[in-house]
Amino acid sequence: MGYSQKDIEGLYAFYKEQLLNDTVPFWFPRSFDKEAGGFLLMRDADGSLIDDDKAVWIQGRATWLLATLYNTVEKKQEWLEGAKLGYDFLNKHCFDEDGQMFFHVGRNGIPIRKRRYFFSETFYVIAAAAYAKASGDDGAADKARHVFGKCIEYATVPGLLQPKFTGNRPVKGIGTPMIMLNTAQQLRETIGDARCDEWITKWIAAIETDFVKHNIKCVMEQVAPDGSIVDHIDGRMLNPGHAIEGAWFILHEAIYRNNDPHLIKLGCSMLDYMWERGWDKEHGGILYFRDVYNKPVQEYWQDMKFWWPHNETIIATLLAFMITGNSKYAEWHKMVHEYAYNHFHDKKHGEWFGYLHRDGKIAQTAKGNLFKGPFHLPRQEWYCMQVLRNYIKGQQ
Amino acid sequence: MGYSQKDIEGLYAFYKEQLLNDTVPFWFPRSFDKEAGGFLLMRDADGSLIDDDKAVWIQGRATWLLATLYNTVEKKQEWLEGAKLGYDFLNKHCFDEDGQMFFHVGRNGIPIRKRRYFFSETFYVIAAAAYAKASGDDGAADKARHVFGKCIEYATVPGLLQPKFTGNRPVKGIGTPMIMLNTAQQLRETIGDARCDEWITKWIAAIETDFVKHNIKCVMEQVAPDGSIVDHIDGRMLNPGHAIEGAWFILHEAIYRNNDPHLIKLGCSMLDYMWERGWDKEHGGILYFRDVYNKPVQEYWQDMKFWWPHNETIIATLLAFMITGNSKYAEWHKMVHEYAYNHFHDKKHGEWFGYLHRDGKIAQTAKGNLFKGPFHLPRQEWYCMQVLRNYIKGQQ
Repeated sequence: MGYSQKDIEGLYAFYKEQLLNDTVPFWFPRSFDKEAGGFLLMRDADGSLIDDDKAVWIQGRATWLLATLYNTVEKKQEWLEGAKLGYDFLNKHCFDEDGQMFFHVGRNGIPIRKRRYFFSETFYVIAAAAYAKASGDDGAADKARHVFGKCIEYATVPGLLQPKFTGNRPVKGIGTPMIMLNTAQQLRETIGDARCDEWITKWIAAIETDFVKHNIKCVMEQVAPDGSIVDHIDGRMLNPGHAIEGAWFILHEAIYRNNDPHLIKLGCSMLDYMWERGWDKEHGGILYFRDVYNKPVQEYWQDMKFWWPHNETIIATLLAFMITGNSKYAEWHKMVHEYAYNHFHDKKHGEWFGYLHRDGKIAQTAKGNLFKGPFHLPRQEWYCMQVLRNYIKGQQ
Repeated sequence: MGYSQKDIEGLYAFYKEQLLNDTVPFWFPRSFDKEAGGFLLMRDADGSLIDDDKAVWIQGRATWLLATLYNTVEKKQEWLEGAKLGYDFLNKHCFDEDGQMFFHVGRNGIPIRKRRYFFSETFYVIAAAAYAKASGDDGAADKARHVFGKCIEYATVPGLLQPKFTGNRPVKGIGTPMIMLNTAQQLRETIGDARCDEWITKWIAAIETDFVKHNIKCVMEQVAPDGSIVDHIDGRMLNPGHAIEGAWFILHEAIYRNNDPHLIKLGCSMLDYMWERGWDKEHGGILYFRDVYNKPVQEYWQDMKFWWPHNETIIATLLAFMITGNSKYAEWHKMVHEYAYNHFHDKKHGEWFGYLHRDGKIAQTAKGNLFKGPFHLPRQEWYCMQVLRNYIKGQQ
């Protein structure tokens, strides 16, 4: 079974159509803030603006998207100019004096909030690198490499960033090696950097050694420094969609390394384990949090369906099928694809809603807020397009 | 219409039965940690322990509850001994070297997390004050008064606590005057303190002046320092159950001040405004967050039904009816009481579930976690008992 050549062509056409005629036009050009720079992205279902503040993560991610579309889909001037708007805003307003970036700024760049994480920085790296490739701006490439170096420091030097917890029960999260893995992959594929291969290998090893638990078929979201499970309510919490995102980062690396069998096995195991724990057998869709031992989860909204775990699972299942040919992955892909486009997609105004109740009803209508913007959905549609196009080309 | 004498007697009997034969026995004595001190409160629906960590807020609140039951319901030795377990644990393990309290400690008191708020301290004050009254321990009374003084400092001296946001868009929350109002009321009613009356007047004025907006019939959760509405996604967010809790703190003060008509009007207006915004006309129950202008709320789980807003609304509507005799409040009380006991109450194991989906289905089964424990529900049942008992006594 699995997907036929015709299915593959249909999926390619579908994702392309959605990306270019539904998702991207929801955001651009209307979100370009030609007055203050950057993007106005906090929008309700119909596109009306609900806030003119700017979330730094999303400013970086939107910049990355526009530059990437320009680099890989079409040399559209509007996309390049949009990427420059975002890139300039990030440089001008989003760095604090200590070199760390803010999390949330006002329309004109006035800093509102800084957080003790460095995700703003990682999204800056991929934005600046993609913009450097699109524009040929060497300064942007230098800046991307410089901030990537800072990210490596934040990720590896203990105590550089202010801790949220006392040191009495130290934990480490899968988020750091995952985001650094993907950041390095992006940097390598846009402007290249001599550090990437070595760090990618290290971060995959960090994930494999400490977070992937084959004995209980699970990918942990956090563990003790020695990789053991922290058997407390927060230490037990799993994030299946996040682990599945990690799975496809590793499958992506497997392809880059000429279908490295060890990485294929690792990525597919992570997907298998977390599909089993995350897929909601009753209502469909990916549950947000689970407890490793099926105890109650601290986060009360744990059984909601968020848009982005579905984007990541659509990518991971498609990639797993394309690599292995295992029809199970085509079936899973079909299940999550159909659930997502039936439940999240706004047929009236385009783009996806972000937040559903467990039963699939819409909980909140915003298309953009401090955490949601033009990233996971267009990245999924764009990435699947690339994968399917490469396959179709390979067949010709 | 409203409630008849017979209804009142029935409600009194119901809350007493629930408190003493359903809610309190769920928690005690099994949660007494005679080995390590304090209480083991993170429990699943059936009472099984899901974590042996200790949330400092809840350790303080449980101590307050046990001492208060001893002071006002029955001189039961078990309750006094339990209160001492909690009080000693708080003193021994929950203060940092800088005098601030932790938020989350391990079973043996090892500090896990400290937060930039002083709610641990306010719950310590009411715990120590109630324990001082129960035990006659003057040292406990001194400690309660000392920490109350620290809370006044935290609440009034800018910059004492580390801010979460940059200073570029300053806001203040209703949480500070509300918690300080209630803390001062508790302190006054247990061991007395010369500072209380003056501060209570000031904090009520702070709520009335800056947070209650009669022109738009709303109680804001946060405002700018001058009391204006911060028209951004976070500044617009309302918490109806929280504002309704504030309403009954003020109605409580109205009774203490011989039915002060201004305070009755203020408390009832707050209840009226936030019932209108919070009551879910479709499914019943109190919605968790709303936007002041009905735009999408940042928090995706905003339409969930949490246990505690229902406890606070049961108290507020009952108190408003007892004070005003307005049958509207008896109707509201009946609506929220019936919704809550039908949807949250666990008929099998006792106590309430904490978290429902908007449609009333249970989202998560824990009875106790880092934020839920023996407080809002037993306080509601205990407080309603007192109010109804006083009324019945007055009739005799």
